[in-house]
Amino acid sequence: MVDTAPRTTQRTTPASTPASQASGAAGSEPKLDVALVERMLRGSYPEVRLQAREVAKDSRFHKVDGYSLDEQRERALEQMKVQASQGFQLRAFPKRLGGLEDAGGNLAAFEELVTADPSLQIKGGVQWGLFAAAILHLGTEYHHDTFLPDAISLKVPGAFAMTETGHGSDVASVGTTATYDPDTEEFVIDTPFRGAWKDYLGNAAKHATAATVFAQLITKGVNHGVHCFYVPIRDAETGEFLPGIGGEDDGHKGGLNGVDNGRLHFDHVRIPRTNLLNRYGDVAPDGTYTSSIDSPGRRFFTMLGTLVQGRVSLDGSTTIASALGLFIALTYASQRRQFASAVPGQEQVLLDYQRHQRRLLPRLAQTYAQYFAHDVLLNAFDDVFSGRADTDENRQNLETLAAALKPLSTWHALDTLQEAREACGGSGFLAENRLVGLRADLDVYVTFEGDNNVLLQLVGKRLLTDYAKQFKGATGVDLAKFAAAQVAGKAFNEGGIRRVGQNLRDLAGVGHGIEALKDHETQRALLQDRVDTMIAEIGAELNKVRRATPPEQAAAFNANQDQLIEASRAWGELQQWQAFTDALDGVTDAGTKTVLGWVHSLFTFTLFEKHLAWYLTHGRISARRGQAVTGYINRLLERLRPHTLDLIGAFGFEPEHVRAPIASGAEGIRQDEARAHYANLRASGEAPIDEKKTKKR
Amino acid sequence: MVDTAPRTTQRTTPASTPASQASGAAGSEPKLDVALVERMLRGSYPEVRLQAREVAKDSRFHKVDGYSLDEQRERALEQMKVQASQGFQLRAFPKRLGGLEDAGGNLAAFEELVTADPSLQIKGGVQWGLFAAAILHLGTEYHHDTFLPDAISLKVPGAFAMTETGHGSDVASVGTTATYDPDTEEFVIDTPFRGAWKDYLGNAAKHATAATVFAQLITKGVNHGVHCFYVPIRDAETGEFLPGIGGEDDGHKGGLNGVDNGRLHFDHVRIPRTNLLNRYGDVAPDGTYTSSIDSPGRRFFTMLGTLVQGRVSLDGSTTIASALGLFIALTYASQRRQFASAVPGQEQVLLDYQRHQRRLLPRLAQTYAQYFAHDVLLNAFDDVFSGRADTDENRQNLETLAAALKPLSTWHALDTLQEAREACGGSGFLAENRLVGLRADLDVYVTFEGDNNVLLQLVGKRLLTDYAKQFKGATGVDLAKFAAAQVAGKAFNEGGIRRVGQNLRDLAGVGHGIEALKDHETQRALLQDRVDTMIAEIGAELNKVRRATPPEQAAAFNANQDQLIEASRAWGELQQWQAFTDALDGVTDAGTKTVLGWVHSLFTFTLFEKHLAWYLTHGRISARRGQAVTGYINRLLERLRPHTLDLIGAFGFEPEHVRAPIASGAEGIRQDEARAHYANLRASGEAPIDEKKTKKR
Repeated sequence: MVDTAPRTTQRTTPASTPASQASGAAGSEPKLDVALVERMLRGSYPEVRLQAREVAKDSRFHKVDGYSLDEQRERALEQMKVQASQGFQLRAFPKRLGGLEDAGGNLAAFEELVTADPSLQIKGGVQWGLFAAAILHLGTEYHHDTFLPDAISLKVPGAFAMTETGHGSDVASVGTTATYDPDTEEFVIDTPFRGAWKDYLGNAAKHATAATVFAQLITKGVNHGVHCFYVPIRDAETGEFLPGIGGEDDGHKGGLNGVDNGRLHFDHVRIPRTNLLNRYGDVAPDGTYTSSIDSPGRRFFTMLGTLVQGRVSLDGSTTIASALGLFIALTYASQRRQFASAVPGQEQVLLDYQRHQRRLLPRLAQTYAQYFAHDVLLNAFDDVFSGRADTDENRQNLETLAAALKPLSTWHALDTLQEAREACGGSGFLAENRLVGLRADLDVYVTFEGDNNVLLQLVGKRLLTDYAKQFKGATGVDLAKFAAAQVAGKAFNEGGIRRVGQNLRDLAGVGHGIEALKDHETQRALLQDRVDTMIAEIGAELNKVRRATPPEQAAAFNANQDQLIEASRAWGELQQWQAFTDALDGVTDAGTKTVLGWVHSLFTFTLFEKHLAWYLTHGRISARRGQAVTGYINRLLERLRPHTLDLIGAFGFEPEHVRAPIASGAEGIRQDEARAHYANLRASGEAPIDEKKTKKR
Repeated sequence: MVDTAPRTTQRTTPASTPASQASGAAGSEPKLDVALVERMLRGSYPEVRLQAREVAKDSRFHKVDGYSLDEQRERALEQMKVQASQGFQLRAFPKRLGGLEDAGGNLAAFEELVTADPSLQIKGGVQWGLFAAAILHLGTEYHHDTFLPDAISLKVPGAFAMTETGHGSDVASVGTTATYDPDTEEFVIDTPFRGAWKDYLGNAAKHATAATVFAQLITKGVNHGVHCFYVPIRDAETGEFLPGIGGEDDGHKGGLNGVDNGRLHFDHVRIPRTNLLNRYGDVAPDGTYTSSIDSPGRRFFTMLGTLVQGRVSLDGSTTIASALGLFIALTYASQRRQFASAVPGQEQVLLDYQRHQRRLLPRLAQTYAQYFAHDVLLNAFDDVFSGRADTDENRQNLETLAAALKPLSTWHALDTLQEAREACGGSGFLAENRLVGLRADLDVYVTFEGDNNVLLQLVGKRLLTDYAKQFKGATGVDLAKFAAAQVAGKAFNEGGIRRVGQNLRDLAGVGHGIEALKDHETQRALLQDRVDTMIAEIGAELNKVRRATPPEQAAAFNANQDQLIEASRAWGELQQWQAFTDALDGVTDAGTKTVLGWVHSLFTFTLFEKHLAWYLTHGRISARRGQAVTGYINRLLERLRPHTLDLIGAFGFEPEHVRAPIASGAEGIRQDEARAHYANLRASGEAPIDEKKTKKR
């Protein structure tokens, strides 16, 4: 493993706070303790993250733009070899194979690589987080001894062959079959039609010599559902496909072009019986199937549950990428000037424009919330995967939380990197300033490792199940009554927080209205009530058809699908809010608490503003208070403006992580040079007179 | 020019309408007349568009993915040479130089090239729409004779050197100077500091041998503001910079990598006096400055007004790109199946999922609105640029409309192409399916030819000016009273449309509420009132400081900047709505009127939903009606589902425009093959039994 290097290098925090028209007397202002917040953001794995950040500074791991497709792919493979030689990938694996058995730390380290090159990150993720992890989690000792060492060392580059052209998120329906032949004690892997080709597989186009292949296990005429098999696919010497195996290159993609994605198909390929990764299901030499999990459904979800680490790590990676994008755009915005300011002869810094603040600071607040929420998720993951608290309930909760947070943070990254790129204008479009490249590479994060909409629907189904559990044994009429009361806000108003939802009786002034919304208990209640009410509304609709035909039930579910996904999103937002609130509650430094409290408020009020129509139509926030929300956000922006550089400084990026010329301080130097030029010209008495001024005389 | 080829080729309209659970008895359903709507979408230049679409089918003009930066640039140059040899670029230019003097038609043809390759489009746009157009519009006969023929023929590839590293949208503040030297009768072009380097200039990195350079014109010690100069920059033989000229390559970008963007700087470069493009301002041999436009401000805006054609053409191009993205994603969605459907043994087509409809159909409606709005804009452009109705007022109206529509349509394209790519999952991320490439290429459209936020602020200033004009001579108190009445909805409610805004008195049923919102006059009033009220609110805020110091006034303006930009967006949406409504009013075919009416409703109600919080807090729509908006949108989605393929068919794309394997029908064939496989297996009696079924027994 990499040693912990002392962090003596210069930090990329612009030294001087530029003049701001928004900041008043800076002396009496509260001040963020940047080092303290930086420690908070490092979460539960501070040392691992610092080590990984040191690794990410190595220029051998940095993305280079303008390479051809082949060059990018070869570079990523070379980067992985360097990584493997450094033992970076060992952390998750068993101690007897040189690892540390540190599941959570492994993800923390992985996440930090996003600043170096997402292609390296994902190509490594395919090798160690999917291919080798499948052997580890779905295989048993024989597979660990036989296949895992070469997978870990990269001697065998591998593909993770789950997705098919015709089946992405619906893994249970893959068409590839693995039929057991007791005569030869082999499985026969077969692709029965074009839609069952494995597709979008990292490493499959060129580098993989083996694959973990998901296929329907058929023995003695019974289909036992999807299992995973270890299948050699290429001759390591020649790079040619082995007999019966074929494939195609997925070619150029929207990003991540260092990863060689491709397709695979199998024509009755025979593998030994023992190549079935048999932790959760096995076939005896005579073809008898056995499993420790009796229910085929639960067995399937248990096997797929090992995939949750991908989702967890994407939540963390995209949060760091969002932070990097904001670091670049906000640094530039604090130096770049455009159009005359209120100060004569001086152009205004971009960050002093209200619109510019509006575009970037709420996204900064969201990113902060994600840092805290991600740490909660990472701990939940480690609890289960370390075996420390590996219960069914914990696994289900982990999967639900990951399925809610991964969509929110991956979409947020695309949105934030795009806004950051636009906020930097033409320079934001240049590859050298990194925003476009990061966005392109992260684009696929919203549909891989579980399509975001499908994941949110999973969360929604869990919310509906939990909701229904409350009513075990209740009649349909009881249920309808409860839902009606929930929707009418009875539960909400009886929760002791009447002071917010007084639609018609709201006679208090605007200021008072905002005060009520600033209370954390009220905020929690508003966010929680929105989830509960949306679910109750959907539950009531589904309840109406609970005795109807399956097609009618399916139609009713579909008619509420959009709302269900919105409810899941609301639930994810609530988890982020709770994590941020808990983190804030733990702060004792007064200045930090104040400034971070404003960030928390900005995050929360941005949620209220986004969902204001819902709160208004449901009578949870009055029109009068609703009107004040936007004004309060604008006041928060003014307050946060002078603390912006501190807030991005706490991300702890160093120049080797940033690498964007516009965020290097060069823009500040250019602006100073321009102003000095005009000042000298005026002083020289040789400045041309403006035509307008000649007319005034 | 290219001949009008008869359109005998096969159309890319999937032949069969797939089974849809949403469509009921198809026989009695209204039907869109696809050919009629296709003609409507072609707008005022049907023949020109058909010709240009034929050109765009030529594979020599098609983008190829995976090329290196150099290869992409050389290919784009070669494409332009082919184009030039075909005379494609002549349309806008004077008849005496072989052109057609068809300003509007030229843009229509240009717009259609987006389906071939945006790099080709924009590199050509730089050459003919900016470099040559500057010579045409800012120069006089001498320049037309001397420089224009080679610019048109591409003998002289040129750059349009306006933007500087330190000044993008604020062109008036560029640092480059052109100082007149009467002794030699030359201008001296100079770059005084790094921030004044010209930057992001297409053709500047490699191919341009001349540039139209914008610089502060200084003569006799007076700065007459920004003018444009013709400056040779490279030796055509060697490709080396001429003495005194230097530059840098902008390198790899987020997209449009066929365009070689670069930087230029000038060290006291001397050019003849006559290289000033002197249509709006001239310098006599003795250094005396003259201009037909007395006001320096108006002169500047007149010169920059010639740039409006870029904005107009981007509005059209991005609308076509959005249509193409939707064509690809909706075709795929109508064939691709995922997860079990209500029909046993059959998986459900993506387009039958409510969420999928929600993601794509409102964007389809928006795209339709943009087609109609763009045609209004293109006609306004042609009225001015043909000279037919070239008045100050028309120019200003044209510029305001372009400044409002270009931001909306360019953002819409990025949003739509992204949603389309996500809706296609992993296959959407492959370059071969075109969505990621189109999005990457179009990314810069939102910040070039006028940054979207800056353009919308221009619109907002115009709206404020118009608002203030109503009150010429009024006191501050009068103004405040009027604004208060406007905000309170007095103007709105007295407009005879009381039936919508009855916040507290709304006792009618939900259905009735939606009925009221379906009336076009009501829709118009709601959209118009929102603009008027937002502007009145801002006007009232600014009125409070009208006697304050300039810094206080600037601070007040800044405190309302975000709202002002939102008001401008609302104004743009109103223009789109009006254009769509007018187009719909002209339809006589009953089926078309019905289906297109639903598209219009979907567009309008999506606006109401988006701005619902505003309408609720301002009492324009009651909470009860507000709650019904989303439900009505969902009903519209169900209604439109069976007409989706007709609606995208009316875009008139042919296979050579689409070129995405997933929209070729291949997915439908794959799905049919998979279903046939399982049907045959079942029929054979050899299908494995599902483990679940063995347990039930």
